Amino acid sequence: LTEQGVDEFALIQRYFQRPAQPTVALGIGDDAALIDPPAGHQLAICTDTLVAGRHFAPDAAGFDIGWKSLAVNLSDLAAMGAKPQSALLALTLPEADASWLKAFSEGFFALAEAHGVALIGGDTTRGPLSITVTAIGMVPSGRALRRDGARVGDMVCVTGTLGDAAAALSGIDSVAMAMRLHRPEPRVAAGALLREHASAAIDVSDGLLADLGHVCAASNVGADLRDDLLPASEALLAAVPDAGIRLRHQLGGDDYELCLCLPPDNVTAAIEALAAVGVPLHVIGRVAAEPGVRLRTADGTLMPQAHSGYKHFE
Amino acid sequence: LTEQGVDEFALIQRYFQRPAQPTVALGIGDDAALIDPPAGHQLAICTDTLVAGRHFAPDAAGFDIGWKSLAVNLSDLAAMGAKPQSALLALTLPEADASWLKAFSEGFFALAEAHGVALIGGDTTRGPLSITVTAIGMVPSGRALRRDGARVGDMVCVTGTLGDAAAALSGIDSVAMAMRLHRPEPRVAAGALLREHASAAIDVSDGLLADLGHVCAASNVGADLRDDLLPASEALLAAVPDAGIRLRHQLGGDDYELCLCLPPDNVTAAIEALAAVGVPLHVIGRVAAEPGVRLRTADGTLMPQAHSGYKHFE
Repeated sequence: LTEQGVDEFALIQRYFQRPAQPTVALGIGDDAALIDPPAGHQLAICTDTLVAGRHFAPDAAGFDIGWKSLAVNLSDLAAMGAKPQSALLALTLPEADASWLKAFSEGFFALAEAHGVALIGGDTTRGPLSITVTAIGMVPSGRALRRDGARVGDMVCVTGTLGDAAAALSGIDSVAMAMRLHRPEPRVAAGALLREHASAAIDVSDGLLADLGHVCAASNVGADLRDDLLPASEALLAAVPDAGIRLRHQLGGDDYELCLCLPPDNVTAAIEALAAVGVPLHVIGRVAAEPGVRLRTADGTLMPQAHSGYKHFE
Repeated sequence: LTEQGVDEFALIQRYFQRPAQPTVALGIGDDAALIDPPAGHQLAICTDTLVAGRHFAPDAAGFDIGWKSLAVNLSDLAAMGAKPQSALLALTLPEADASWLKAFSEGFFALAEAHGVALIGGDTTRGPLSITVTAIGMVPSGRALRRDGARVGDMVCVTGTLGDAAAALSGIDSVAMAMRLHRPEPRVAAGALLREHASAAIDVSDGLLADLGHVCAASNVGADLRDDLLPASEALLAAVPDAGIRLRHQLGGDDYELCLCLPPDNVTAAIEALAAVGVPLHVIGRVAAEPGVRLRTADGTLMPQAHSGYKHFE
């Protein structure tokens, strides 16, 4: 229901103004927010847009859209090993629908509060439904996980499992998979722990091969992956017994897991560190000198790569 | 012309990758950018969205849209007295049109380079044309110009002139006014100088009465303005001889001037400081105890307020 006569400022106050947070010097309500950077830290900052009909169905639940619009950004911070601190929300809406805004804000803040993220600013405007979140995190200076640190001989690893989101998107009816698609849990704790162990990191949002390809390009290396090592959830194994179809889902993207390169000597310690926060870490391949990302079967046969990931303008 | 097969990454690289800037630790191309905060400073951060058909005509020049998408954010930083440092660009496009992207990026970088702003990250996605820029600036700790510092007895001032943008939007044919509408010059230098003099500041984007109203509400004060003191450009005076119509334009918004409150003893010094950077500063009224913003004629008669500014969801 559109509320007549409720202006932007009243709407923002009603649904998006929360108590001030001590880490933020000045939050919502001025021309800009002010942040006191903690000593010895760098700020990590990223922005991602979700567009109705492209990143979510036009009739998707407001709660899920709110959650995911922040989650995709916290996933980027996690891939840097940064601790999320605050966010700005640019919300473009066809109408000021109070019940939708309530649900959206509840989803957004459910995830924000779980990670201690303060909403410090934003913009509300009328137009086709679209959400751009900017997230800000802190990372000890010089310790961020970057894409350009992979070295030949590193092991390629991935957190959690791959393929649930793409399987849900393909229409497979599973509550567990739908949750992975609509309310992804960014790997924030894992990313921070992996600063001690990994040489490079990226989040798997556009598909494993495309995202690992970015790491390889930035690091001037390549990678060889083994298809039988790609981790799948119990739900995916049960719902998609065909290994070929399952693989397509596993390469499909939207998983918001972390893909990492680690020196071989660090793998055991990293697996143990992540086990302590309940996040599995799987070795899926190895960094090589030859450029490009190759997927092979267990006997070494090169697999054709039908899915190189989500390209926004193809 | 849409280029087939040109993916997001190639487009971003072609038009948006510029040489690294020393103030930015890690720019475009990773999961997040990294910033080294300078000692003794706070970060000011803001975000604003421009939507096609709402904030600019669907057939507006790409150069102007690029310029203005950054300008509206630098204007917010100026209103905090912050020095712009970097920006993120979330670009939603119906198609990957290389000539439009070239023009857009030229407009964006023309303003960015004039203010030493590095593009450090962003997102490109397909959808209805919309641009969200997040701008980051630096301000000496505790010295930002806020909305909540106005005191009863302060003088209300405004930089530059008011009304050219609204007049251009109303269809008056003037190159000078069109430039004010499409390529506003954010008052960055003036904002930094005014940190020494002003008690409160806001940028006049939604209209003088609405924006000053935000300052008054945040400061628990009110304001009395004099209609005959509102500054108008020579172009506006010549094109709109009717004072009543001119006033409507002057209250119309989109001017990206700064509205300030200053203790009376600081006004002369502020005018002199801004004159040194070529920015006029005009006294237009006074801060009062009674809440609300009132516009009066020179003889004190209260004027009816037909235009209380741009409200995004009315």
